[in-house]
Amino acid sequence: MTNKLDKNTHVFIGCDKEYEKSDIVIFGTPFDGTASYRPGARFAPSAIRNESYSIETYSPYQDKDLCDSNIKVFDGGDLELCFGNTEKVLNQIKDFTDKILSDNKLPVMIGGEHLVSLGAVRAAYEKYPDLRIIHFDAHADMRDDYLGEKLSHATVMRRCYDLLGDDKIFQFGIRSGEREEFEFSEKHNFINKFDFDGLDEIINKIKDKPVYFSLDLDVLDPADFPGTGTPEAGGVSFKELLPAVFDALKLNIIGIDITELSPVYDPSGRSVSLACKLLREILLAL
Amino acid sequence: MTNKLDKNTHVFIGCDKEYEKSDIVIFGTPFDGTASYRPGARFAPSAIRNESYSIETYSPYQDKDLCDSNIKVFDGGDLELCFGNTEKVLNQIKDFTDKILSDNKLPVMIGGEHLVSLGAVRAAYEKYPDLRIIHFDAHADMRDDYLGEKLSHATVMRRCYDLLGDDKIFQFGIRSGEREEFEFSEKHNFINKFDFDGLDEIINKIKDKPVYFSLDLDVLDPADFPGTGTPEAGGVSFKELLPAVFDALKLNIIGIDITELSPVYDPSGRSVSLACKLLREILLAL
Amino acid sequence: MTNKLDKNTHVFIGCDKEYEKSDIVIFGTPFDGTASYRPGARFAPSAIRNESYSIETYSPYQDKDLCDSNIKVFDGGDLELCFGNTEKVLNQIKDFTDKILSDNKLPVMIGGEHLVSLGAVRAAYEKYPDLRIIHFDAHADMRDDYLGEKLSHATVMRRCYDLLGDDKIFQFGIRSGEREEFEFSEKHNFINKFDFDGLDEIINKIKDKPVYFSLDLDVLDPADFPGTGTPEAGGVSFKELLPAVFDALKLNIIGIDITELSPVYDPSGRSVSLACKLLREILLAL
Amino acid sequence: MTNKLDKNTHVFIGCDKEYEKSDIVIFGTPFDGTASYRPGARFAPSAIRNESYSIETYSPYQDKDLCDSNIKVFDGGDLELCFGNTEKVLNQIKDFTDKILSDNKLPVMIGGEHLVSLGAVRAAYEKYPDLRIIHFDAHADMRDDYLGEKLSHATVMRRCYDLLGDDKIFQFGIRSGEREEFEFSEKHNFINKFDFDGLDEIINKIKDKPVYFSLDLDVLDPADFPGTGTPEAGGVSFKELLPAVFDALKLNIIGIDITELSPVYDPSGRSVSLACKLLREILLAL
Amino acid sequence: MTNKLDKNTHVFIGCDKEYEKSDIVIFGTPFDGTASYRPGARFAPSAIRNESYSIETYSPYQDKDLCDSNIKVFDGGDLELCFGNTEKVLNQIKDFTDKILSDNKLPVMIGGEHLVSLGAVRAAYEKYPDLRIIHFDAHADMRDDYLGEKLSHATVMRRCYDLLGDDKIFQFGIRSGEREEFEFSEKHNFINKFDFDGLDEIINKIKDKPVYFSLDLDVLDPADFPGTGTPEAGGVSFKELLPAVFDALKLNIIGIDITELSPVYDPSGRSVSLACKLLREILLAL
Amino acid sequence: MTNKLDKNTHVFIGCDKEYEKSDIVIFGTPFDGTASYRPGARFAPSAIRNESYSIETYSPYQDKDLCDSNIKVFDGGDLELCFGNTEKVLNQIKDFTDKILSDNKLPVMIGGEHLVSLGAVRAAYEKYPDLRIIHFDAHADMRDDYLGEKLSHATVMRRCYDLLGDDKIFQFGIRSGEREEFEFSEKHNFINKFDFDGLDEIINKIKDKPVYFSLDLDVLDPADFPGTGTPEAGGVSFKELLPAVFDALKLNIIGIDITELSPVYDPSGRSVSLACKLLREILLAL
Repeated sequence: MTNKLDKNTHVFIGCDKEYEKSDIVIFGTPFDGTASYRPGARFAPSAIRNESYSIETYSPYQDKDLCDSNIKVFDGGDLELCFGNTEKVLNQIKDFTDKILSDNKLPVMIGGEHLVSLGAVRAAYEKYPDLRIIHFDAHADMRDDYLGEKLSHATVMRRCYDLLGDDKIFQFGIRSGEREEFEFSEKHNFINKFDFDGLDEIINKIKDKPVYFSLDLDVLDPADFPGTGTPEAGGVSFKELLPAVFDALKLNIIGIDITELSPVYDPSGRSVSLACKLLREILLAL
Repeated sequence: MTNKLDKNTHVFIGCDKEYEKSDIVIFGTPFDGTASYRPGARFAPSAIRNESYSIETYSPYQDKDLCDSNIKVFDGGDLELCFGNTEKVLNQIKDFTDKILSDNKLPVMIGGEHLVSLGAVRAAYEKYPDLRIIHFDAHADMRDDYLGEKLSHATVMRRCYDLLGDDKIFQFGIRSGEREEFEFSEKHNFINKFDFDGLDEIINKIKDKPVYFSLDLDVLDPADFPGTGTPEAGGVSFKELLPAVFDALKLNIIGIDITELSPVYDPSGRSVSLACKLLREILLAL
Repeated sequence: MTNKLDKNTHVFIGCDKEYEKSDIVIFGTPFDGTASYRPGARFAPSAIRNESYSIETYSPYQDKDLCDSNIKVFDGGDLELCFGNTEKVLNQIKDFTDKILSDNKLPVMIGGEHLVSLGAVRAAYEKYPDLRIIHFDAHADMRDDYLGEKLSHATVMRRCYDLLGDDKIFQFGIRSGEREEFEFSEKHNFINKFDFDGLDEIINKIKDKPVYFSLDLDVLDPADFPGTGTPEAGGVSFKELLPAVFDALKLNIIGIDITELSPVYDPSGRSVSLACKLLREILLAL
Repeated sequence: MTNKLDKNTHVFIGCDKEYEKSDIVIFGTPFDGTASYRPGARFAPSAIRNESYSIETYSPYQDKDLCDSNIKVFDGGDLELCFGNTEKVLNQIKDFTDKILSDNKLPVMIGGEHLVSLGAVRAAYEKYPDLRIIHFDAHADMRDDYLGEKLSHATVMRRCYDLLGDDKIFQFGIRSGEREEFEFSEKHNFINKFDFDGLDEIINKIKDKPVYFSLDLDVLDPADFPGTGTPEAGGVSFKELLPAVFDALKLNIIGIDITELSPVYDPSGRSVSLACKLLREILLAL
Repeated sequence: MTNKLDKNTHVFIGCDKEYEKSDIVIFGTPFDGTASYRPGARFAPSAIRNESYSIETYSPYQDKDLCDSNIKVFDGGDLELCFGNTEKVLNQIKDFTDKILSDNKLPVMIGGEHLVSLGAVRAAYEKYPDLRIIHFDAHADMRDDYLGEKLSHATVMRRCYDLLGDDKIFQFGIRSGEREEFEFSEKHNFINKFDFDGLDEIINKIKDKPVYFSLDLDVLDPADFPGTGTPEAGGVSFKELLPAVFDALKLNIIGIDITELSPVYDPSGRSVSLACKLLREILLAL
Repeated sequence: MTNKLDKNTHVFIGCDKEYEKSDIVIFGTPFDGTASYRPGARFAPSAIRNESYSIETYSPYQDKDLCDSNIKVFDGGDLELCFGNTEKVLNQIKDFTDKILSDNKLPVMIGGEHLVSLGAVRAAYEKYPDLRIIHFDAHADMRDDYLGEKLSHATVMRRCYDLLGDDKIFQFGIRSGEREEFEFSEKHNFINKFDFDGLDEIINKIKDKPVYFSLDLDVLDPADFPGTGTPEAGGVSFKELLPAVFDALKLNIIGIDITELSPVYDPSGRSVSLACKLLREILLAL
């Protein structure tokens, strides 16, 4: 009972280590300020923490447990981001990611909309100029601008391209975009439509490079994951995603994000639950 | 900005050509007056137009775009149909379909409940007495009457049969009905339970005939498409449906409908989104 | 039937006059980019148009009808606003309001979040430097900044104050804010907490002045109007609001907005329906 | 436990008497086939029975209990009505009401949409040619036709007028309709806009006549009763309605209906709960 | 119409035989009193009865019909269970199951949360000391206690183990639990993670034994079955479950339950609909 | 930014003082294990904390602020309560309340269902044998048992009566119960049906006594507060409740609870928001 006399804490299940002693740092970026269609990804980090207590800490897939002594994760809560000034938000995200990277810890960011990845990638690129990005998504996000704006969920990978240059971004699961986006990615990046074909080759090719892994959860089929702002039929299943994620995590991962969960569109709660389970599997696989 | 000084228009994305210059005419039939279980299909045409702006005009499946210059579609909005008098509603639908057919354009009707097909089929049959029907559905819709009524969503294909006669209707995906309906279809039509087995043969067999394509969206599994009045487990996936639709559209299609989207049962919006995507693919494939 | 051969239009019920011949111009500003708590006001203009067909054009309160020949309203649809760049959005709103005002028509803006008022007020102030604002709201919106940002739904009236100066803004129904906001308004503006006490006096006092009327719908009690981002118990009822609106509209009104309807939080649809009815009453009273 | 060996029964709480021994007969008419805006009233009778077990049988308002020995109510379940043929549905309702009236019992019909009243009124008028109707509603329902149809929820009171003639229908709470409907009722019936003013006089005037009481639940304000197809702001509260109902029930009531509950629009369940409570109070007051 | 003069009955579609003449007895146990995460399974039996009228009595999978003369099922409605006293609830369930078994009928229990199985298993074990259990579930339910409590949805199979002993329980589809639960089941029972591998062998092995079949519906993937309290990604599909159920039903089944439907989490209604369909298939296969 | 390097905390807005330095202790009791109708009150404490950041810390009603230096509140989070063993849950609540009372702090408990009050009252009675209870509620909660169980949300005030004896409990707003409950309270306690009439007298009468204040939020009308398990029409408004609460808080209050918020039934979120606001007003008034 005495624990009730400490201040109430609110972390992802099993992620209650101290910052100094942790290898991995979770933080939330509750921002969806450029969402053009349906907002709501801002509620994802809080929902993921709340609902994480409905899953187990143990994974029967990996036979590992978040309570195992060698798993050391700190949950830093959410950054306090202000809507209405996108550049400032990205700077806040970059600054916090800088801090984590400079302390030689692995940042695991919970979005928010996909644009938040840009803040983290800017920090990662600064430290690792030879950075690669593995990108799972339904949408190419390769527009040069969206209604005239350069900073948008629909342009985020193009902005990453601007930083990293040719042949550094590897896209999988893409099934929506303008013709120009597909053409751009075919020319300047690697793009695989619809599924994970070719992932093995890419992994082999970049296995010695520092890799940022950007996982837009709408790569999943809406049947598995309805809780997202822009559901796009024809996606991959959870059973297809999980081994692909495990494969990607064998790389030299230096940063991760999972984005675009929007809990409000899924009254069953299974999208949040799936995101929690996926986050557990990611933390255990790292 | 000056465009704001024209009257506001409301069409399916990319379907803003003039009637006279169009090859294809979309129109909505917001009617669910015989729905015996859960109504709501009346809201489908409006929802499809509203949400169509969340999808792209470009198809990575076909590498075509609704904005390509050779795609000419007019969206005529919704017919104003009165609930309570079913025969009159069918006449309104028939009249408008007549007009489109007589102008040598292709009608693409967005229901509404499945009974609306009967109005369009009556018009199509008048112009094409040798008409065939390809029918994708979860339900046989082959009852002779429903609680004594001859005009019902549950009898629509039987009424089509009354017009067309033996061996003209080809049913796929059917997984619900009375024993008598299955027996009737086995005797007088072609019926394939559960999936699209046999579609190739049928396509080959009727490839020289005029074909009406009636696509009841509840042929999809409720996992993919929960937004429908009578969800029936065990259906086909979107990934199975799309190639089957492409196959059917290789025929000499003279009319199409998609029916039984009921947006209210799907708070994720993915059923509407899927219907928009499917409609885009249909328009591009024609 | 021939009307189906025109392009589909989508206007508020009865508001189908041409721009040139109209006295009043409705337009939507689907923006909620600074919403700090729960977004969704972006969906209000579309919902109001869609659902306007469920109300009558006739008002038994005023015995007037939107179809009466002397009522001339043009609905210009929605401005295409880009999320992520707040200043640019405000400029777009200001430009369109400028155009309406310079054509000597009355702008009636449907938000969107409350910040959109600032764009319209900037235009109104340019034409009418002696402008007053009548402001109905649950929230004072008088912060100088919100998490460092000057442009926010929570600062909108403070920004208006920056333009207009002392004793020009008259606030009613306010029941939430920081202590400093209440103190600021008591010192520099007129503020009435909780209800419409004192409205008569204010109306008498400013009856010769040009007046902008800014109606944040969350002034209503959430019992009457649950469909809003930040519901605040203890508000006025519809039966209290309607006569207060009629009173305010007796002034020399040169611009109006209604903001902060967020349809998604009200599955009954009655918040949208109330907004439609209120808009009808406003249009008929002008 | 032995009761589990009888077939499961499903009646409104406390209404488990046998038909022969009952004074009052409840029956449901799950029909909303002419609903032009939002259907769903078909689900009301089932919802009312299901949820009735969440209320008490005892009324602290009247100090009476449905279990008191002098309260004898039979619940006959729902009529099996077919959608798509409105006239036939009305005949089914009329036939069953005829039976109840000819057995000298009091019919209490649970709609369904408001048009169902016409079936019961036809039966009542046949037995009582001098019939009066007390009508509580938000909508006048006095159109001569709706989109050309004579039988509609929007015309139901006009059809009753056609039967009964001038000065037999007394309308209260009406706050929506076409100008012509209000003018018609002012000329041929009694109409009181917005509330129950004048009810006392009317009760006094018709106290010796047979009276049918038609209670469209949307007379209530949507704040109290959001679960209805066409919510109309500005209605009466439950606390205003209850005494007005008690007053009306002092008349020589020969038939009652309550209509237009549409449970699906109220996820809180309080609209169904209110309808249950109101039905209990009506049964106890009779 | 005369049927309306009997008391209203409420049974699963087609299950209207009398107790004495039936081979199978359906009953509901609306209890979710130990649900630690999200309650709601209490509403399953009522929902299943209500919605059963939306499915057909005929199965195209088995070419059998609930109306066929050799199908004799009695639906006894729901046990009246009191929340707050778990042991008492289990006794009520055991007593009623005892009665059914002693009358040589087959009990088919509709939960409720999974703990209800314990009541039925206690009765079955008493009659059949050599009992086996086939258990389909997402969760192992093998904890020895849950927060100190021995009786919980999370311990139900452990309590069954306590009764039956080693090598009597056969678990399939399990994908969530503590490490200790998996280890315990591997040691004392049979457990297959994720799917139905090994089911054939087990069926062969126990084909001469009395078998209780406990079907926790959350064995299904949440894509197919979102309406459950603890959705767990990575489950089996309906198309995988159905043949596995048919296989299990070839055994000497002496009792069945289906549990953990929680209708409130699935606004599409397809989880209830799937449960109805599955129950129909089970009843026809027995 | 450095604050992100502390462990994430989760308290009611402004209630971040340390236990030792606080006068008031908030704690949650997420228990709804005896809810007979609709569960969900278990989610209230978490929802109240989450959503508290959408309200201001400042009260314009009292001109006080939770950030004022003289307001010292500690939020201890939620007790970890196990469903299925009611007596044990009550003991846990009693123990924690004992601790708070023995440290001379004021316990403010956030339910949970109403039965949780019994745990706190047992502790309060032990310290203050001359205890009185002010009870605001829609339901009398005076049954001696509910389906045979002595411990139930429906019996909680009767159990309190068993402890305290005659003329110690004062009930207001009661509008539902069995006849026996009303008769019992009239004989042994004070009961005022429907509203707060007589509250002044009672306050005057017990102003020198230690008082426990039990506020079941369903005393509010469901129009104001739909988010509760058993909505009961005819309740008091927020504007009536607030001054009554302020009046009650003038007494010698030694413990408080607010119970029966069930967030899931109110998608608008206004019930949670109202509870947050009420809790703020209570904390500021103490």
